[in-house]
Amino acid sequence: MRLALFNDHRPGVVLGDELIDVSSIVHPLPAEAGGAWAVWLAAGSGTAALERALLSDALPRHPLDSVRLCAPLPRPGKIIAAPVNYLDHKIEMSEQKTIAEYGVFLKANSSVIGPGDAIELPYSDKRIDQEGELGIVIGTGGRTIPVGDALDHVAGYLGLLDISVRSTEDRSTRKSFDTFTPMGPWIVTADEAGDADDLQLDCWVAGEHRQSVSTAEMIFGVAELVAYASSVMTLHPGDVIASGTPAGVGPLADGDEVRLTIERLGTLVVSVTGQGAIPYGDRPIPSTASIATSTS
Amino acid sequence: MRLALFNDHRPGVVLGDELIDVSSIVHPLPAEAGGAWAVWLAAGSGTAALERALLSDALPRHPLDSVRLCAPLPRPGKIIAAPVNYLDHKIEMSEQKTIAEYGVFLKANSSVIGPGDAIELPYSDKRIDQEGELGIVIGTGGRTIPVGDALDHVAGYLGLLDISVRSTEDRSTRKSFDTFTPMGPWIVTADEAGDADDLQLDCWVAGEHRQSVSTAEMIFGVAELVAYASSVMTLHPGDVIASGTPAGVGPLADGDEVRLTIERLGTLVVSVTGQGAIPYGDRPIPSTASIATSTS
Repeated sequence: MRLALFNDHRPGVVLGDELIDVSSIVHPLPAEAGGAWAVWLAAGSGTAALERALLSDALPRHPLDSVRLCAPLPRPGKIIAAPVNYLDHKIEMSEQKTIAEYGVFLKANSSVIGPGDAIELPYSDKRIDQEGELGIVIGTGGRTIPVGDALDHVAGYLGLLDISVRSTEDRSTRKSFDTFTPMGPWIVTADEAGDADDLQLDCWVAGEHRQSVSTAEMIFGVAELVAYASSVMTLHPGDVIASGTPAGVGPLADGDEVRLTIERLGTLVVSVTGQGAIPYGDRPIPSTASIATSTS
Repeated sequence: MRLALFNDHRPGVVLGDELIDVSSIVHPLPAEAGGAWAVWLAAGSGTAALERALLSDALPRHPLDSVRLCAPLPRPGKIIAAPVNYLDHKIEMSEQKTIAEYGVFLKANSSVIGPGDAIELPYSDKRIDQEGELGIVIGTGGRTIPVGDALDHVAGYLGLLDISVRSTEDRSTRKSFDTFTPMGPWIVTADEAGDADDLQLDCWVAGEHRQSVSTAEMIFGVAELVAYASSVMTLHPGDVIASGTPAGVGPLADGDEVRLTIERLGTLVVSVTGQGAIPYGDRPIPSTASIATSTS
């Protein structure tokens, strides 16, 4: 099943070219509360009741192109992300280490946007890249989950862009600006996604085909990511794991369209705006900070 | 005012040696929902109504030592943290950079524990340190908040320990293990805390007085931290900013007691357990990861 949020964050299920409004079954919730699907996952609600309801003709149906889709998880509890989880990206970034040494990092849950939204470039004079990734949505939470059980904890998958400033800051800063985690177009449940360790991923920026890979190339596969992350921190329903990006990252510019397609998961399209970008030197750093730095 | 959670996460206000149960005024909520005070802050609830209610004798009162205090914010929306925000800690860690170059990092909101809880050491053969810090609790959210307005966005302060593994991983991993963010003993509202840029902070481990500093020594002060963090990510009510640690960090061992006292904010005491610690080499890293690393 394809679990979407649409218009005012109402829950819907996408079937072919139609979106079925399931807000009479799944309680709608605003983005601030995490959205309907995060709470539905936390309640341990399975898909069976939803599937039965879809068989009836009682639910409102809309042409998919007549609704505005939102990020299916507008404010996850955690966004856990994998650095350097493809060898070709390790080489292009001249990285000496991989996720095995770096572990995972965190992105701010305030950085999520959805289909059709705009990535806002914060700085006018720093390179800011697209990183197309497979996103893993946690269903049943847990801690120190064994690799062999890990897939039982995955509710589904989605397309995810890990937008990144190339600068000196910690990953959490460089990758957590508002709008830096586009997600969507919807969650595809694990049963429908099939083997997530072998999905073709393609990403285009302004029509340029920048990334093309199978998720089979990941250093930590889906089960290993879930197991490792849960060895550090308890996973909760609706948490998202960004599984890392392959080679082909590159700079974004005002007016670009970014298109991420993952096999069986659909296509996420967002735009890029440079309005509001400021020179890096104008970010709010107190003058005492440079004094402190110079004493090193 | 001192805003606490006690027993089953009921909200209480601490007055002298008493705790006043305010759950008839502030709706109690479980830890999973962020706890009562996070939601109260999000609702923009000021302290005036609470203060009026405290004047009546109608509310249940308990001796403070008869209740079990919990973390006042058991699962914040975000925990934003400052790396290298004291010069003496920069020197002790042989750091070449400060927060001015590193920006901020994120800790998992699943890492919070409260007074009397235990820090669980994940690894038996890695150094794991205490870092005593001033915690800043956001009241009114916002983005790109000017330094001059920043203190208007602070609801209060609390003691916070940023527990850290010394290893190769990203800060978000090294500092996000479950139990790695003790907080408390309560939130002290900004009016009662006074000038948070000049508070004496002291931290003891197993009776050893390891850290002693005034927050006046911070490189980014409270207003600068709020302004800088909000230039990266929208701040929401109940978000917490850990303001960085001074010199004197050191290893924790099974059975230690960690005691953090901040002037006017109270004393947070937690214990340390090594039960459950595993050798670092036994963490779940897939065997393919070492193959990938060796090709660098």
